[in-house]
Amino acid sequence: MSILVAADFTAEEWAEWMPALARAMPDETLLRARGAAPNANDADAFDADAIDIAIVANPPCGALQGLRGLRLIQSLWAGVEKLLDDPSVPAEVPLARMADPAMNEAMAETALWAVLSLQRDHFMYARQQREARWLQHAQRAAGNLTVAVLGLGQMGRAVGLRLARNGYRVIGWSAHRAQLDGIETHAGDAALPAVLGAAQIVVNLLPLTPATRGLFDARRLALMAPGAGLVNLARGAHVVEADLLAALDSGALAHAVLDVFAHEPLPAAHPFWSHPRVTVLPHVAAQTDPRSAAAVAAANVAALRGGKPLRHLVDRARAY
Amino acid sequence: MSILVAADFTAEEWAEWMPALARAMPDETLLRARGAAPNANDADAFDADAIDIAIVANPPCGALQGLRGLRLIQSLWAGVEKLLDDPSVPAEVPLARMADPAMNEAMAETALWAVLSLQRDHFMYARQQREARWLQHAQRAAGNLTVAVLGLGQMGRAVGLRLARNGYRVIGWSAHRAQLDGIETHAGDAALPAVLGAAQIVVNLLPLTPATRGLFDARRLALMAPGAGLVNLARGAHVVEADLLAALDSGALAHAVLDVFAHEPLPAAHPFWSHPRVTVLPHVAAQTDPRSAAAVAAANVAALRGGKPLRHLVDRARAY
Repeated sequence: MSILVAADFTAEEWAEWMPALARAMPDETLLRARGAAPNANDADAFDADAIDIAIVANPPCGALQGLRGLRLIQSLWAGVEKLLDDPSVPAEVPLARMADPAMNEAMAETALWAVLSLQRDHFMYARQQREARWLQHAQRAAGNLTVAVLGLGQMGRAVGLRLARNGYRVIGWSAHRAQLDGIETHAGDAALPAVLGAAQIVVNLLPLTPATRGLFDARRLALMAPGAGLVNLARGAHVVEADLLAALDSGALAHAVLDVFAHEPLPAAHPFWSHPRVTVLPHVAAQTDPRSAAAVAAANVAALRGGKPLRHLVDRARAY
Repeated sequence: MSILVAADFTAEEWAEWMPALARAMPDETLLRARGAAPNANDADAFDADAIDIAIVANPPCGALQGLRGLRLIQSLWAGVEKLLDDPSVPAEVPLARMADPAMNEAMAETALWAVLSLQRDHFMYARQQREARWLQHAQRAAGNLTVAVLGLGQMGRAVGLRLARNGYRVIGWSAHRAQLDGIETHAGDAALPAVLGAAQIVVNLLPLTPATRGLFDARRLALMAPGAGLVNLARGAHVVEADLLAALDSGALAHAVLDVFAHEPLPAAHPFWSHPRVTVLPHVAAQTDPRSAAAVAAANVAALRGGKPLRHLVDRARAY
């Protein structure tokens, strides 16, 4: 049996990923599906019935159609909402997301950088530098700052623990109850307003589901503490961008650090680029390292071949 | 006996510090010496022979002259090089620097923020935002990055430990051998070139002494790894500013984060302000919190009164 690799990779990305995957699973036959972009890659010819595993990274819609022998879909990305939206992705086949400890640590670094920057006024000092202005602001202690981490999956947990280890008071929130060493956690819709109101900084790491799409709308943003900061490292669709702009313009929120956007790349004319209270990152909070991600995928492939339990499976009922 | 407080405080700073000191040592009589700036404060009348302790913060030159009963000079700042340069400061009186754990942690936060910013290209992303440019750079893992911490006093140690706890490979250097849990340390002039050459990021926390003044000159900067970053959180006089500018302009160094300068406030026309490879902070890496610093000073005052050992004494032979 063979593995089909279906992705929206550029030619450069194919050239990086295929050798990484081949090195991680040298006994497997890896075949490239046709990419989304024309001429992005040379697709391999394959017999659909000989495919029992698909390794995917935002595959073109319909890419997995007709693979009747499929027993595992392994995503190379952590976010799987596009796969869940594709009706041709067979619902009965186990779907595993990427869960790469190296990525979790990269995400924790980005969250910590954003929180440190907000705590210690570094975005303000950067503006002052452009104006050649020497002005000191009173320093806030980490221990006096409450940071709310929304979403306690693998990345949210890594972020929460990292922030707590660096002296912040961290509170966690997730749709379903989660426990995290030394961190106060809350769960469910009813608990969300109090969590949003208690934090000076809110870090979003929720999965994108029908329930979390547009979560940061005018109503939720108004629940945040006056002058709070928002750090969105999850998905652009979590935030109603017009509502966030209004909250920043009014001064209700002090600053937003955004790594993800409704439309990516962020259009050149978008007001976020030049907004003094917005820090734009080009979706780099946690890049996937082909080598470590290929090793994680290979472990699930080996588990399937050996009849062992699969890891990091998506709960389709919860959509993550 | 009374305590003389001699400082170059503004009127606002006097209004903040005197109550903090009074609360920390309610049984002591605290008298204000004349400040450096005219009319910065109303000096108290005092009998020079009734003063046995001076609490100082960059006191005007000569402020401690004629205090024949002096038994302790307690600085409110960690850096004491100006006191050591003042010939009227009696050399035989014990001189204690500020050693405030809250300040050490603030310094560790600033160093961590600067290192994270350099590691994850955040200064580059900030420039790209100003150009509305969406461009991703390859992410570097903390574990593949060596950070050299120069100076292993209280602040350097806090910085080294914090960076190590956040996944960086840390090497320490100091004039005299120091040990630090889990961190490779080197000492002495002969070891400095190898330390400078081994690091992708160098963080300076050295005391300012005749031996360290101008340490970062063209010769030392050329010993740093190509494309390395320099973070100066100690004193401006550690760096030969023209040499640093030349190293940045040539691309030998990638970026400098500077909190301290030869002349502060940094003059408006200084090239650092607008240099694309320089991040300017207005001497805010670790602000002194009057409340916690007053408590540290009060502990030494109580030790003197109780005949107990004084803490954080400056070794005048080593000039720190």
